[in-house]
Amino acid sequence: MTTEFDRLRDADLPSVRAEIRAGRYAGHTAGLGRGHLQANIVILPEAQALDFMRFCQRNPKPCPLVGVSDTGDPMMHTLGRDIDIRSDVPAYNIYRHGRLEGSAPDIRDLWTDDMVAFALGCSFTFEHALMQAGIPLWHVENDTTVPMFRTNIDCAPAGAFRSRMVVSMRAVDPSRLTEAERISRRYPLAHGAPIHHGAPDEIGITDITRPDWGDPMPLAEGQVPVFWACGVTPQVAIEAAAPPLCITHKPGHMLITDIPEDCETPVLTPAE
Amino acid sequence: MTTEFDRLRDADLPSVRAEIRAGRYAGHTAGLGRGHLQANIVILPEAQALDFMRFCQRNPKPCPLVGVSDTGDPMMHTLGRDIDIRSDVPAYNIYRHGRLEGSAPDIRDLWTDDMVAFALGCSFTFEHALMQAGIPLWHVENDTTVPMFRTNIDCAPAGAFRSRMVVSMRAVDPSRLTEAERISRRYPLAHGAPIHHGAPDEIGITDITRPDWGDPMPLAEGQVPVFWACGVTPQVAIEAAAPPLCITHKPGHMLITDIPEDCETPVLTPAE
Repeated sequence: MTTEFDRLRDADLPSVRAEIRAGRYAGHTAGLGRGHLQANIVILPEAQALDFMRFCQRNPKPCPLVGVSDTGDPMMHTLGRDIDIRSDVPAYNIYRHGRLEGSAPDIRDLWTDDMVAFALGCSFTFEHALMQAGIPLWHVENDTTVPMFRTNIDCAPAGAFRSRMVVSMRAVDPSRLTEAERISRRYPLAHGAPIHHGAPDEIGITDITRPDWGDPMPLAEGQVPVFWACGVTPQVAIEAAAPPLCITHKPGHMLITDIPEDCETPVLTPAE
Repeated sequence: MTTEFDRLRDADLPSVRAEIRAGRYAGHTAGLGRGHLQANIVILPEAQALDFMRFCQRNPKPCPLVGVSDTGDPMMHTLGRDIDIRSDVPAYNIYRHGRLEGSAPDIRDLWTDDMVAFALGCSFTFEHALMQAGIPLWHVENDTTVPMFRTNIDCAPAGAFRSRMVVSMRAVDPSRLTEAERISRRYPLAHGAPIHHGAPDEIGITDITRPDWGDPMPLAEGQVPVFWACGVTPQVAIEAAAPPLCITHKPGHMLITDIPEDCETPVLTPAE
């Protein structure tokens, strides 16, 4: 049986985007549009936009900003030739006053003239690079969601946006640890180098078998738990700020941009 | 004769900042506070802040954002333990409606509750790295200002902020060109890799002996002209946007931050 995901996996980027825009694909985007930068999405009223943008600037490891729309303009001009943020994400979460109200396949009916859309880099980029280097990722091989944890590390606040840093955990063989750090450091727009390894309690994680989000992951004998800053952090900050309306992507259901994953800067240039 | 600059060159960072804050030093900062990130400064009313921040996000090579104040708060909390943006830059330029009105040694009398201060990375960082690698820089050795040129490369606009990219030029021996590119690419917060080398006319520069800013520089036989995105670009965008008030550092008279020059992210952490 060929699923819709299987069919899209080998499709080119315009075809994938067309299927998502038409509402014919509402699944996760891991492995789709190969080689292109994928992004977490946060949409807020302009009244909250400057503070949220400051929060991202001050916390670039969990919140690497890769694109921002003009106020009221749903087209993400610097991220692609034809990206409409109201329809080009497979599934959206809708928050009112900081609480998840529900999900939607598009947000055409919610978009207004005072909205600003933010795109933040995600971990797919460095995960691809790790796997290409032959560093296995258990959660990918076992088709589970990476385990994520609240830490005791304070983010730099901005206005009402404040949060402890959330991290994702991957198990790495000690012989590959330096290489894993070096590879991920190359991708500052995808959380960069890990923020910690080895001693979860030092960053406030008391039980690595019980993640706050995602699925548990076994740690094989001798493997080191490695922690990267995670894109769930801004979601916690949004819950704290409790803006009247906030729309995000549904976890795992990212925006696929036109930007090459190994770009120096995430901005479309006339030559591309 | 020992000048004030000579005296400060060997001083530690708190002493340098204290001298600047007290108004006892109003000179350029090249070579001061060695090892610390220096920054271009742009101060704007909040009404223009979101658009300016979008301009920086969309044009990270000329405008690498390293810090943003809270509205009305003159302390740059993420860049240092005690940085007051009203007094800690040696000299300021004051623009009204996009036109340079004058300079001042501090701006305590101009700062208001609706102002936002932006800090942008500058070329000192990668210049230090080039010199440490033994790649000579003519303008440093000859104590002149690096030549800067308008190009035909459009920046991505944001609101009223729009500009062609301004670049700075350095002459590099062909045998060191790859190394110069590799070294500067390591510093995305200091303009990153060059945007062009070799053929000035391809980026709209018709006469490299006549820079639009700075001093002319001779090109020795066989040397390659190399062009990096330049922090004068936002100044041109500000002239275009013509906000009622804008305050910048005076060229060469930078803010010296507490952040190490080789930081992964330009944010003070509790451990530092």
